[in-house]
Amino acid sequence: MPLSEQLALIEIVLVSPRNPLNIGAAARAMANFGFERLTVVAPYEPHWREAKSAVGAEGLLQNAKRAERVEDAVAACTFVIGTGTLERRRPEQRGVRLPELAPIIEQELARGGRVALVFGPEKRGLTRVDFSLCHLLVEIPTDARQPSMNLGQAVAVCLYELSSRLLAAGPAPLPEADAEKRADSAQLELLAGAIEETMAAANYSPAEMSAANRHDVRVLLRRLALGERDARRILGLFRRVLWRLRH
Amino acid sequence: MPLSEQLALIEIVLVSPRNPLNIGAAARAMANFGFERLTVVAPYEPHWREAKSAVGAEGLLQNAKRAERVEDAVAACTFVIGTGTLERRRPEQRGVRLPELAPIIEQELARGGRVALVFGPEKRGLTRVDFSLCHLLVEIPTDARQPSMNLGQAVAVCLYELSSRLLAAGPAPLPEADAEKRADSAQLELLAGAIEETMAAANYSPAEMSAANRHDVRVLLRRLALGERDARRILGLFRRVLWRLRH
Repeated sequence: MPLSEQLALIEIVLVSPRNPLNIGAAARAMANFGFERLTVVAPYEPHWREAKSAVGAEGLLQNAKRAERVEDAVAACTFVIGTGTLERRRPEQRGVRLPELAPIIEQELARGGRVALVFGPEKRGLTRVDFSLCHLLVEIPTDARQPSMNLGQAVAVCLYELSSRLLAAGPAPLPEADAEKRADSAQLELLAGAIEETMAAANYSPAEMSAANRHDVRVLLRRLALGERDARRILGLFRRVLWRLRH
Repeated sequence: MPLSEQLALIEIVLVSPRNPLNIGAAARAMANFGFERLTVVAPYEPHWREAKSAVGAEGLLQNAKRAERVEDAVAACTFVIGTGTLERRRPEQRGVRLPELAPIIEQELARGGRVALVFGPEKRGLTRVDFSLCHLLVEIPTDARQPSMNLGQAVAVCLYELSSRLLAAGPAPLPEADAEKRADSAQLELLAGAIEETMAAANYSPAEMSAANRHDVRVLLRRLALGERDARRILGLFRRVLWRLRH
């Protein structure tokens, strides 16, 4: 598949945008830079209807999906990129600045992965829980005196960067022989769930720690960059352990 | 002067924006990427007042200037860059795509030049006359199916590109020994005026050709990349010729 077609398949995810104009602005920027797949998480219903009537992006918005949770929006993706400030990530999470992002996505596409780029709501941005579903955090380098960007402009800047750098670089190199397809987000969530249940069944820690454990497991699984087969194998192990614990 | 301070001195010029939100959006993007000088040409007065009350860019908008004509907005600039589609330029005008712009501006700043980046009105963009005042045309590479960008997003994309590529590249190289300071736009307009008067005084061509001649002279003078001294010398020559023609 030519790189321009692969690029079009990158999922753009907007989490609960508050300003209805921003859904239209994001869709407009997507059309400008050749992106096609938009998912809006938990939109406010009147804004969602209003956005669908925006000028210049009709087809794209008609095909846009809605999802109730970020997990659902990125379920089929093998590499999830959250936008925000690097300060907010945890030390074990990987982060880059936008000008460094294109080669990373290129590698991911070359190994047959599916990529999502996730934008948080206007004021507060992505939450800590949203970030725990991301393999990578990306920051747009901005002036320290006015770091906070308008959502529609942030989307435009990110998509410009990706389309101009990826398409200028030419076709991606062939994947290495050992480049296994990564586990997608749905598979990682399944695995995280099994690990969590195992923790509970084994009385690993008190009940009030379960939210913190879930978070740590999610972050860990993304950092490990698990392949599809590895993830299946580990899931099998935990299910077996869980069965033994319960019987 | 450090590059970040030079960058801040690039003039951002909006020509007759129609949507009042776009003045605020441009100012917001300028603040995000460390730019400080905004001039709005022939704004619609109520929009101008409305924009001055936008959130997050107060100082910048309070210092924003208004000009009646593009010529006035760029008078002190030695290198004027118009944004638009490369198809619209004349063959003798220089044009580049946005990812190629940073090194060109870097050279200009290194030789002590002053740079303006000019954006046209939302629907029609810069006119042919506006372009005749530009040394260079720059195009944001967009998808052929939806090439027309939102103004606020176009400004954000251009300023992101310049700030991220210029600041990442480190300090500009020292100017070459023979790098003369360029003539600024006011000087070029003065020279164009003298040449035009000379044409008229010499009956160079019929009166109905004068608009076309003015355009050609403007384009020619920008393409020549005249130094300050050269421009003064040529102006002196034409004034002398003009005096002789008239006496």
